[in-house]
Amino acid sequence: MNEIIDALNKFRDEREWSQFHNPKDLSVALSIEAGELLEAFLWKQPEDADPDKIKEELADVFSFAFLLADACQLDVKDIVL
Amino acid sequence: MNEIIDALNKFRDEREWSQFHNPKDLSVALSIEAGELLEAFLWKQPEDADPDKIKEELADVFSFAFLLADACQLDVKDIVL
Amino acid sequence: MNEIIDALNKFRDEREWSQFHNPKDLSVALSIEAGELLEAFLWKQPEDADPDKIKEELADVFSFAFLLADACQLDVKDIVL
Amino acid sequence: MNEIIDALNKFRDEREWSQFHNPKDLSVALSIEAGELLEAFLWKQPEDADPDKIKEELADVFSFAFLLADACQLDVKDIVL
Repeated sequence: MNEIIDALNKFRDEREWSQFHNPKDLSVALSIEAGELLEAFLWKQPEDADPDKIKEELADVFSFAFLLADACQLDVKDIVL
Repeated sequence: MNEIIDALNKFRDEREWSQFHNPKDLSVALSIEAGELLEAFLWKQPEDADPDKIKEELADVFSFAFLLADACQLDVKDIVL
Repeated sequence: MNEIIDALNKFRDEREWSQFHNPKDLSVALSIEAGELLEAFLWKQPEDADPDKIKEELADVFSFAFLLADACQLDVKDIVL
Repeated sequence: MNEIIDALNKFRDEREWSQFHNPKDLSVALSIEAGELLEAFLWKQPEDADPDKIKEELADVFSFAFLLADACQLDVKDIVL
């Protein structure tokens, strides 16, 4: 997981985004992405969702969740288990 | 991360929850938890949120995100990087 | 408000969407639109959001909220006041 | 609808909440309530949701949607139709 978090932080820093990445807006971003993920399932049976859309939006959910965990100095394994 | 996913699956199976855990409802659950996480920040400056609430709700977000990734046979590292 | 609800129902029926409009998916749609509305404010101070985006997404939020109220035979004034 | 908006504004002012009610936090609140509404449907068939929970949470969704419309000086009928 450290590899993921390092890559996300690098991506963020290359774009000078850290100035915007306060925990509140990261949580807002996470909620927006969770909504976009839901779109893959809207008006559909669970098995009819578009796998590529799920993959793309779930990746965005994870990205903001990891960035928020890092911003709050939380260890993902520690908090989940 | 495999350790986390194994623990979540074990927790789910002990409660016989897998019958409910279709990808659509897992995505709905993830969105609900993202909303509960947002509650930690509502009407507040980013730095005034309750750290324990963030920790608890972010853990729930990760749990459903990992369960959904597993249900869709997606590797978290592969999709994020 | 009846005028709004009648117009929304007409719009829906012309597209034969009522088959998809069960309360669960309407609630999912409402949550997605609430997320799109949030996008207008992401990484911004409250006063810097795009007014046109707010207008458009808030309209979508209201549309699904009215359709859901109608599907559940709930009177908006009764439930809010 | 004006009657609803007046009542909500009165309720807000009696509690001196207008200081917190900037459009960004109202949109965050709306998204949180949309998530609580979704909870009524989680792990369930659409017809098995608890009607009282739907009623209560949909009322909260409408309340914040009306307060946000009012804060942005948007007329609900104008934007939806």
